[in-house]
Amino acid sequence: MHILVINCGSSSLKYQLISMKHETVLAKGLAERIGINDSLLTHSPKGKDKVVVRKDMKDHIEAIQIVLDALVDKEHGVIEDMSQIKAVGHRVVHGGEDFAGSVCINDDVIEALKNNATLAPLHNPANIMGIMACRQIMPDVPMAGTFDTAFHQTMPRESYLYALPYSYYTDYKVRRYGFHGTSHKYVSQRVAELMEKPYDAIKTVTCHLGNGSSITAVDRGRSVDTSMGMTPLEGVPMGTRSGDIDPSIIEFMEREAGMTAQEVLNDLNRKSGVLGISGISSDFRDLADAAETGNERAKLALDIFCYRIRKYIGAYAAAMNGVDCIVFTAGIGENAASVRAAIVSKLSWLGIELDEEKNNTRGREARISTPDSKVQVWVVPTNEELMIARDTLTCITKD
Amino acid sequence: MHILVINCGSSSLKYQLISMKHETVLAKGLAERIGINDSLLTHSPKGKDKVVVRKDMKDHIEAIQIVLDALVDKEHGVIEDMSQIKAVGHRVVHGGEDFAGSVCINDDVIEALKNNATLAPLHNPANIMGIMACRQIMPDVPMAGTFDTAFHQTMPRESYLYALPYSYYTDYKVRRYGFHGTSHKYVSQRVAELMEKPYDAIKTVTCHLGNGSSITAVDRGRSVDTSMGMTPLEGVPMGTRSGDIDPSIIEFMEREAGMTAQEVLNDLNRKSGVLGISGISSDFRDLADAAETGNERAKLALDIFCYRIRKYIGAYAAAMNGVDCIVFTAGIGENAASVRAAIVSKLSWLGIELDEEKNNTRGREARISTPDSKVQVWVVPTNEELMIARDTLTCITKD
Repeated sequence: MHILVINCGSSSLKYQLISMKHETVLAKGLAERIGINDSLLTHSPKGKDKVVVRKDMKDHIEAIQIVLDALVDKEHGVIEDMSQIKAVGHRVVHGGEDFAGSVCINDDVIEALKNNATLAPLHNPANIMGIMACRQIMPDVPMAGTFDTAFHQTMPRESYLYALPYSYYTDYKVRRYGFHGTSHKYVSQRVAELMEKPYDAIKTVTCHLGNGSSITAVDRGRSVDTSMGMTPLEGVPMGTRSGDIDPSIIEFMEREAGMTAQEVLNDLNRKSGVLGISGISSDFRDLADAAETGNERAKLALDIFCYRIRKYIGAYAAAMNGVDCIVFTAGIGENAASVRAAIVSKLSWLGIELDEEKNNTRGREARISTPDSKVQVWVVPTNEELMIARDTLTCITKD
Repeated sequence: MHILVINCGSSSLKYQLISMKHETVLAKGLAERIGINDSLLTHSPKGKDKVVVRKDMKDHIEAIQIVLDALVDKEHGVIEDMSQIKAVGHRVVHGGEDFAGSVCINDDVIEALKNNATLAPLHNPANIMGIMACRQIMPDVPMAGTFDTAFHQTMPRESYLYALPYSYYTDYKVRRYGFHGTSHKYVSQRVAELMEKPYDAIKTVTCHLGNGSSITAVDRGRSVDTSMGMTPLEGVPMGTRSGDIDPSIIEFMEREAGMTAQEVLNDLNRKSGVLGISGISSDFRDLADAAETGNERAKLALDIFCYRIRKYIGAYAAAMNGVDCIVFTAGIGENAASVRAAIVSKLSWLGIELDEEKNNTRGREARISTPDSKVQVWVVPTNEELMIARDTLTCITKD
């Protein structure tokens, strides 16, 4: 049983073909510059060399066809026949309040996704394009959708409602949705296994730290609060996003700098975060290098990043009235030992003790707290594709 | 030695005359509707009946004169002669980065206040009017200014810098300033006395909960973080202010509801907070009454208010790597036992134990945690006027 997992951007398409028997990745790859020019596919089959296919892809339909061709290719392929693909799982960014879990895709689902497009105008239309393309090329293969927002639909009203005029929520769906849900769900489930505790018995703070970063409070298996909000802008500082600010700043910059609200929002999304503070880079490796050679603002950017994550951990411990475990995941969380140490070292009041040696790890599952630490701290590499494949399998089996 | 403390709004003037020997209030009052019409003075002399004086006050100069007349009045007065007023202390909202403490007012100070007026366009101009009026009427009486922002000038850069393009800070002074500084300073100092601990040895979270609300982390005598930001809009939800939101919401409402950024900001300041959620009132007594008779949205407003304060307490415990004491002050903090209980009851993981009986108190200094509670919880009524008078005395004595 093989499942194809697809994650569509407006001009890109990421995929993994996963064999569900042992949950192994048979091939993965990325189609880029779809509908632009010089489009190309990078295809990595298991146990074989990576190949780059340069071929025009004028839309996502052509891109999917080229991906399928690569998967069954005599030389670079990993399956003999398209019929071996039993289902397709799509990552969808915004499920709004309609989806609290993965679903089999039908016309009603597509309609609901279109209705939620105003909430994620950059992402949902691309996700829908991928779904429509697969429908056309593989009409008989069942498909499921997994939503970045779904895991957070268990949040109580105290967490998801802003203190705004109530009509903002009822008339315009303004509320906290949260993102990275598939990742937070995966690592919180996985860490429970690693700790050998029932998932519904532990309180976990999951720190997904990558290009985008978010922190989630997972209280006995349920997301009860998360740092990203109505959009992925809110929360901790990120590569180029500001995270939390005083909302008055937008109007202040309109007044004082003669900018439009849209221009300020553009700055908040693309020129802020650690890039904005440092003036150097949104890449944490660049910042670490610069900080090491004495660049003050690079150090400041890292300090602010770590400090604000630390505060969210404290806030979520308060939200859950306790915490048993902290998990780091995604690019920075899995690889940046110094960032993890900076965040955790000043949480000794929580009874956390970091094992410096064990923390010296990259990209592998590891418990990085000492055996005596009251709160366990773990690195758990995320695996959103596997989570999507599992959910897809569940969906198509149920039906 | 008597000191007159003045707090000017654009059409109002609050005052207290304080005898510094035993720090007693000789008289206090409020001039309203200055420069409008039907202006009136409410004057409360110590040990005598309150009087209301209805008299035109076309500007703050006339208002100050009427206040002074009331203070020396044969019948309602409390002093014999204006010369007994040895100094005037002014409350000033925004000191920007120029003032980390109270200062004697001279031309340079007034100039600096004018320069900071863009940061507080509603408040600083009124404060300056009060200063100029006193200068004209009492030219020989020394004056000092006490700033709402000054106590927070000890915040480290990690706390006060937003993750924005660095030029927002250098070119436009965009940063966290924090407010209610005089109150946070007063109650944090006072609680150290009550706990019989050195001020510079304890970690305190101060919760100033009134019409405006803010939470501060006071780490061994220094404000190291505070929930209000560049303006008083940021932080916890308030009577009519939203506190923290996803900043994207402003642009979203522009796009989806056809509002201007200024209209959204107006909603955030005047129609949000517990008023916005409940749809009933910004007054916590009204909300408590409504919640008691089953109004769901009133209950929700209170739940959100308490939940978000709880998260800030956790965040600030993380910021200081521990907490010894939590203090409640201002209108709600001093009087609303049920709000205090709701905030604190779910912080048992911090070792906090509330004494339900002792918590049943209003407007008086009281320790409301049990003797065994690891973190002490106190109610300490704030006294910003006394703090201003003390600071004024220090300023004029130094010179």
